[in-house]
Amino acid sequence: MTNPTAAMIVIGDEILSGRTRDANMFNLAGKLTNHGINLSEVRVISDNPTEIIVAVNETRKKYDYVFTSGGIGPTHDDITADCIANAFGVEIDVREDAKLILATNYENGIDDLTPARLRMARIPNGAILIDNIISKAPGFSMENVHVMAGVPSVFNCMIEWLLPKLKRGAEMISSTVRVDLPESRIAEPLGIIANNFPDVSIGSYPFYEEKKYGANIVIRSTEKDLVLVVEKEVRSKFNLS
Amino acid sequence: MTNPTAAMIVIGDEILSGRTRDANMFNLAGKLTNHGINLSEVRVISDNPTEIIVAVNETRKKYDYVFTSGGIGPTHDDITADCIANAFGVEIDVREDAKLILATNYENGIDDLTPARLRMARIPNGAILIDNIISKAPGFSMENVHVMAGVPSVFNCMIEWLLPKLKRGAEMISSTVRVDLPESRIAEPLGIIANNFPDVSIGSYPFYEEKKYGANIVIRSTEKDLVLVVEKEVRSKFNLS
Repeated sequence: MTNPTAAMIVIGDEILSGRTRDANMFNLAGKLTNHGINLSEVRVISDNPTEIIVAVNETRKKYDYVFTSGGIGPTHDDITADCIANAFGVEIDVREDAKLILATNYENGIDDLTPARLRMARIPNGAILIDNIISKAPGFSMENVHVMAGVPSVFNCMIEWLLPKLKRGAEMISSTVRVDLPESRIAEPLGIIANNFPDVSIGSYPFYEEKKYGANIVIRSTEKDLVLVVEKEVRSKFNLS
Repeated sequence: MTNPTAAMIVIGDEILSGRTRDANMFNLAGKLTNHGINLSEVRVISDNPTEIIVAVNETRKKYDYVFTSGGIGPTHDDITADCIANAFGVEIDVREDAKLILATNYENGIDDLTPARLRMARIPNGAILIDNIISKAPGFSMENVHVMAGVPSVFNCMIEWLLPKLKRGAEMISSTVRVDLPESRIAEPLGIIANNFPDVSIGSYPFYEEKKYGANIVIRSTEKDLVLVVEKEVRSKFNLS
């Protein structure tokens, strides 16, 4: 069995301009790994309809799941929902179920739903709503594309709600061996091990700490036994206990 | 005059698995904005030759500059240089100038250059070296593609060296107005302003702080006067001094 694959699309000029440091990618990446879904690609794109539509259509065909963050608020620059409808060739309008959920966020309920607020109830035809326990305005799933907010706390509550509903793959088992040698002295023996175990992902991540070079060797596979065998090989090669 | 455009390609399984939080994107995004280069897209991809080659070839044709981070060390999973050569259809081998620079990092100079270390002197034909004052192993520029290390301190020294050599666009002038109202009450007046100034980028970035909603309105343009006019409109619309 191979694990489901996924792409993430981060929508937001504020990330590309360097104004904001994205937090959702790191959060999602860790959660997907724990759930056995392989995040294969992330694209950060601007608030531009064509870019959004192209990115959604390319990735939804290539991967089992697509997760987007950003652009579903009430302001003029929140265009993600309309772009998703366009990408799927479906209509979009204010939807009654989304409107009722949204209304619970305001003192006078539906009477408080100004046109701007109603924008947050615009849902492409055929989409399933994603719960937002923080600020109510829902995300939505359109086939395999899951559309979520950019505000990290809201993104997080949406993904926590969504993830248990998605296919679970084999969890990636990972083991890290720290080697206090410069990477250039680790490379050859490690290359031989990697060659002998083509089905195990073996990464070397160099660091520089207290004026000394070292590397973390990360061994990853869905098969625990294989990880343990490779870990033993690495330890023995570098004389680690 | 329009500003040069750029894409960034972050190469690294460790980012996609959630093991490491990328730091280079945020760093590069801010530096490019200050230099007047518009970062238009970022892709985070895995250590997979096909993915790297496709991403490089797609972006180098679409944008003025492409910046890559990661995969130029000495270990078996460092395949970026070979992929760049492949993408450009040129040969790659250990290059004498890179070898001499690398040798200065070791006690016995060239005699210390093991096959693994020599991998870091493999440079595609026709590339120009990028200085690395931290650990010597150079990056390189192949036409409009600039290939740099993934370790943040090294990435940073390479981009600092490289940036003054690239075309400088008009600096993006930016002004932020904080409005202490929920975004849904900001949306309509702001939409009208955005409509009246189609050449100015006006973004609304909501926050939730001390149990109150608000938004930062970010006004951006290369023309300072326009930014000031829009800022004045926003302040007057929301009764801010």
